[in-house]
Amino acid sequence: MRIARFSYKDTPRYAFVQTDKQDGKDYLVELSGYPLTGQQVEPTGKRYPLDDEDVRLLAPVIPSKIYGAAKNYRAHAAYMAEHGQSSNPEPPEKLMLFMKPSTSVIGPDDPIVKPSYSKDMNYEPEVAVVMGRMARKVSANEAMDYVLGYTCVNDVTLRDLQKNDPMWTRCKGFDTACPLGPWIETDLDYRDAQISFKLNGEEVPEASGTTANLIHSIPEQIAFISSFATLLPGDVIMTGTPNATGSLKNRDEATVQVQGIGYLRNVVIDE
Amino acid sequence: MRIARFSYKDTPRYAFVQTDKQDGKDYLVELSGYPLTGQQVEPTGKRYPLDDEDVRLLAPVIPSKIYGAAKNYRAHAAYMAEHGQSSNPEPPEKLMLFMKPSTSVIGPDDPIVKPSYSKDMNYEPEVAVVMGRMARKVSANEAMDYVLGYTCVNDVTLRDLQKNDPMWTRCKGFDTACPLGPWIETDLDYRDAQISFKLNGEEVPEASGTTANLIHSIPEQIAFISSFATLLPGDVIMTGTPNATGSLKNRDEATVQVQGIGYLRNVVIDE
Repeated sequence: MRIARFSYKDTPRYAFVQTDKQDGKDYLVELSGYPLTGQQVEPTGKRYPLDDEDVRLLAPVIPSKIYGAAKNYRAHAAYMAEHGQSSNPEPPEKLMLFMKPSTSVIGPDDPIVKPSYSKDMNYEPEVAVVMGRMARKVSANEAMDYVLGYTCVNDVTLRDLQKNDPMWTRCKGFDTACPLGPWIETDLDYRDAQISFKLNGEEVPEASGTTANLIHSIPEQIAFISSFATLLPGDVIMTGTPNATGSLKNRDEATVQVQGIGYLRNVVIDE
Repeated sequence: MRIARFSYKDTPRYAFVQTDKQDGKDYLVELSGYPLTGQQVEPTGKRYPLDDEDVRLLAPVIPSKIYGAAKNYRAHAAYMAEHGQSSNPEPPEKLMLFMKPSTSVIGPDDPIVKPSYSKDMNYEPEVAVVMGRMARKVSANEAMDYVLGYTCVNDVTLRDLQKNDPMWTRCKGFDTACPLGPWIETDLDYRDAQISFKLNGEEVPEASGTTANLIHSIPEQIAFISSFATLLPGDVIMTGTPNATGSLKNRDEATVQVQGIGYLRNVVIDE
């Protein structure tokens, strides 16, 4: 099931995304409430074609918190060392976490605004987990019962500022640094989700990967985070970027794709 | 003016704290709405004695984000180097920021729950700034127009975990790591606010200080943060701890005091 947040003539609301069996097109089936709080939601009876020009997909959730896993793939840890961003080509033994603020979140087709004080803004395509229930000290075995679904995220990073920003608060937390979407897919084989990235429509093979290669699996990430902090419905975990990353410049089109979810496309504009 | 969030028989609401001229006692003058969103609020006509046993002060705000300034006093930077927590007794030249999640916030008299996986939980008494208006790219000169007021904060930190938690996500972000209160004081000389700390009722002189010794002043902190991230009403900036910190153990009573605001008292319990 695909759960989308959208606006139609500027009023935000939630919908299921459903493919019509007759015409084969995708429609937003509008819902009466907010499907992330356990509240009963029902179709209002209205539906909109996904390609209606008055429809705009929004970030599927504005999380109370966003955790990110750093260097959670061997290939990415090696890439970061090769490119002088760390002294150790081996990933850290323990899961290394950072946070992004909710103000960094943007939705599909929203512009990524490249700050004037950076000369090297990077894309990082990832699978994002969206929590469905409050989770506190849950084990890896039970962790997946607390997940609502998955979406695409671009963990946009100001690479040139990262070394002098020890807690990554600015380089990963600036406004527009967290494109999220296009919707929450509740049915995904999270053990082997294929991540890929397109720069201006061209696939960048060295940026792709699969969650099968995660060092700390998704259930392990949820278990570790919930061992110290309560995860709330709508909270997001960015699970890590699989391999190489690269620069984004003015007018570049950045597309994160996860097979089984869909794609998240944003265009860069200079501040 | 003092703005408090409180519950009376378990319903949370806002109030002004006012001293009655007749009996000299403090009362909560209940308000009709939420005074942090620019919405018009008016007294409902009800008031409660602050010491009423059915009154409970809550954290004055649940922020969408909480920034903290690291090593923002020379004395604290030197203390951290002396105690083997950093190699450099000099503070960083640039403002160094970290984040705490909203789930770490607790209010006055709420217990600080010491996690079982830490053997050295530390107190850090600080002045917290509470934003009153959305702030984006404001200069230091205009920054104070965006502030609602100030409260006390205890930036509780698991010191023994800090070195292996590079972005301080767990050691400063665990549940109950952010005691906040007792209320928002809108009138304070933020340029010279006296911070002190009491452990089990005894003042700890080496933990005290004044915001006059801040390296990066409050207006500078707001200007820097708002240069990259939009600050929302209710967002909190923890401005730094002035000097020494120390351990908190089971049943310890930790009291942060800021002259002109009041005090924030919490008792530690082992998980």
